[in-house]
Amino acid sequence: MITRRDVEEADARIAGRVRRTPVIEGEPGLVLKLESLQHAGSFKVRGAFNRILGAGPTPDAGVIAASGGNHGVAVAYAARVLGVRAEIFVPEVCAPIKVAGLRALGAHVTQTGAIFADAYEASAKRAAETGALEIHAYDQPEVVAGQGTLGLELIGQARTLGGVDTILVAVGGGGLIAGVAAAVAGEARVVAVEPERIPTLHDAMAHGGPVAVEVSGVGADALGASRAGRIAYETARAAGVRALLVTDEAITEARRELWRDYRLATEHAGATALAALRSGAYTPDPGERVAVVVCGANTDPSTLT
Amino acid sequence: MITRRDVEEADARIAGRVRRTPVIEGEPGLVLKLESLQHAGSFKVRGAFNRILGAGPTPDAGVIAASGGNHGVAVAYAARVLGVRAEIFVPEVCAPIKVAGLRALGAHVTQTGAIFADAYEASAKRAAETGALEIHAYDQPEVVAGQGTLGLELIGQARTLGGVDTILVAVGGGGLIAGVAAAVAGEARVVAVEPERIPTLHDAMAHGGPVAVEVSGVGADALGASRAGRIAYETARAAGVRALLVTDEAITEARRELWRDYRLATEHAGATALAALRSGAYTPDPGERVAVVVCGANTDPSTLT
Ligand SMILES: Cc1ncc(COP(=O)(O)O)c(C=O)c1O
Ligand SMILES: Cc1ncc(COP(=O)(O)O)c(C=O)c1O
Repeated sequence: MITRRDVEEADARIAGRVRRTPVIEGEPGLVLKLESLQHAGSFKVRGAFNRILGAGPTPDAGVIAASGGNHGVAVAYAARVLGVRAEIFVPEVCAPIKVAGLRALGAHVTQTGAIFADAYEASAKRAAETGALEIHAYDQPEVVAGQGTLGLELIGQARTLGGVDTILVAVGGGGLIAGVAAAVAGEARVVAVEPERIPTLHDAMAHGGPVAVEVSGVGADALGASRAGRIAYETARAAGVRALLVTDEAITEARRELWRDYRLATEHAGATALAALRSGAYTPDPGERVAVVVCGANTDPSTLT
Repeated sequence: MITRRDVEEADARIAGRVRRTPVIEGEPGLVLKLESLQHAGSFKVRGAFNRILGAGPTPDAGVIAASGGNHGVAVAYAARVLGVRAEIFVPEVCAPIKVAGLRALGAHVTQTGAIFADAYEASAKRAAETGALEIHAYDQPEVVAGQGTLGLELIGQARTLGGVDTILVAVGGGGLIAGVAAAVAGEARVVAVEPERIPTLHDAMAHGGPVAVEVSGVGADALGASRAGRIAYETARAAGVRALLVTDEAITEARRELWRDYRLATEHAGATALAALRSGAYTPDPGERVAVVVCGANTDPSTLT
């Protein structure tokens, strides 16, 4: 379990390394947190910096992570800024453009295994050999506390806009929502939003613990953890988080809206929380103030229109 | 000449119609004003709303403007929100996708004349016949005062970030910079940035009044007024505004940076002010705090990478 105290410590630790991303008002009662403008295109740098800086001097072998997605990019970015070595393991199917992007950030990339779990296992083995600092994509206390700094920021920013009652957050492995729930405990309610084709937290809640789910659909590249993390499950349960499901069509429509009405580039994961509001999966009470976390922008811009 | 008082009146008049767009800190000492997230993709709605709302009841014939660019889109958007008729005149060469965009906003579009000046003349003739309210793209006091509300907002927002000494603003006909200069008079310096291939304000300053310039290059679609407006020239001269020139390459590079480092979609005009900073056309003094207005996002996103 992560507490607000952990998040506050993370916030002090990573100050100046991450952007204080802005909020913007949508229609009355709606606040959008524009984390899509974060360094490396998603909130993931928050957890990466907190894990690295919280672990003391980085080993000569540097840091190591498994991810062909935003976590990998964030770790590579943070390592470059801090001047430490980064090794990123990705499955063989990882798109060449993503591998090139990681290399452009100076990371050493190893492509191995058919699926993510294979790449992850190889990275863990390698870390045991080299002594590199492992950075998990979501199920590590420092990572969760780092992601939670988004929630601290949001609560402070929303105060100047009349406050916020409810925060809608997209969920993959659950690191972001767990951190945010810890950060805003007692101040706002947090609601999880997942694609119906990747119901990790939803099914964990239904089964009394993380279970493996099938992964498919438009959110798979960023929200495609095959089960919720332990920390995520326990923090979400303790906070009474509800997990809502949305269709791929609703996500795609919300992403289109963010481009059309705000000129915001987002990936599907970045539009998932808004989809809950627009599709009616979440209906605010009259007067309820809702914040939506726009959490990622790593997308091919030619797909926005 | 426009005064701060005019801008404050405009601000009260258009409140709730335009977005209070966020600011974000770049490197230390740099603030970006993200007006690219404004309704209809640019600051132009500020002037359009102020002109319409400031003129009292709109005639049955509605409002009329000549522009195949952001001004036309902004007028069509404002008219739709306010429930009044909009007629937009565009030259025959106007891209079909722009005409379709205007029609999608409910505007009546007339394509006429080989160049913008012909479309403008036809719109003025039509307005004289119908009694529609003309909305000029830059050389009308209500339009300039409306654009200036961006400056008022920025000054207030920058205060919470340590203040701002200098504001860099892209210039076409000069409505935006004149409004901003009026809004921040006595509080910050305003510097004009123009593509070297469209030096409207630069040449007006050199000649002691607006003169016709050749128009070409990447900024032409949004910054392509063929001469500075009277109001712009007089306000800028009174405020001691300097006009700097940047190359098309510097603009293109700045636009690329905004996408790469911030995931901000901008058109070339939207990146022109930043280009002055990056190319060295403007070099801040040590400790000087600079704001850059990111003024427009109406671009084909497939051209961002
Ligand atoms: C853009 C984006 N949104 C949301 C998530 C989900 O985060 P978490 O796995 O912490 O639930 C991710 C994870 O990669 C992401 O990249
Ligand atoms: C995005 C953008 N930036 C800047 C300008 C220049 O504004 P002004 O003509 O008021 O100088 C325009 C004008 O259309 C524009 O659309």
